[in-house]
Amino acid sequence: MRFGIQILPREVILDTQGRAVEQILLANKMQISHCRVGRYVEVEVPFKNEAEALKEVQKMTEFVLVNPLIEVYKVSRLPEVNP
Amino acid sequence: MRFGIQILPREVILDTQGRAVEQILLANKMQISHCRVGRYVEVEVPFKNEAEALKEVQKMTEFVLVNPLIEVYKVSRLPEVNP
Repeated sequence: MRFGIQILPREVILDTQGRAVEQILLANKMQISHCRVGRYVEVEVPFKNEAEALKEVQKMTEFVLVNPLIEVYKVSRLPEVNP
Repeated sequence: MRFGIQILPREVILDTQGRAVEQILLANKMQISHCRVGRYVEVEVPFKNEAEALKEVQKMTEFVLVNPLIEVYKVSRLPEVNP
């Protein structure tokens, strides 16, 4: 079962990467109002039951992937890829 | 208009961050089959027309956010946030 985890810095945190991207795009005459840069992780877990799988993915995410002080995350189920 | 850009290393590329995450999770007795680590960028552009906005976002993404040799990306429209 595949899940995608989107991780972004909290709004109150100064997102230095996002500021850098904004500046370079504005300097190159592109139109941008706001930008935040975070991480995206795709995981595959060997579960049949969606609720169990989601619980395991959340446990993993909180264990190694996210720093809850400065980041927020969102987990979403992804369609299976046929081998 | 808000868009989310998911960037992942291509399947043929050795994803060192993904391997590291897999190892640490397995070493801590969590169940994981596969993991890929990439970036997630949220951008807001001042356009009214979705097609134009998407074109600008794709231009930006290819200009600074993605290295097409080693990464693939997916752009998706996000719902507006009410201020």
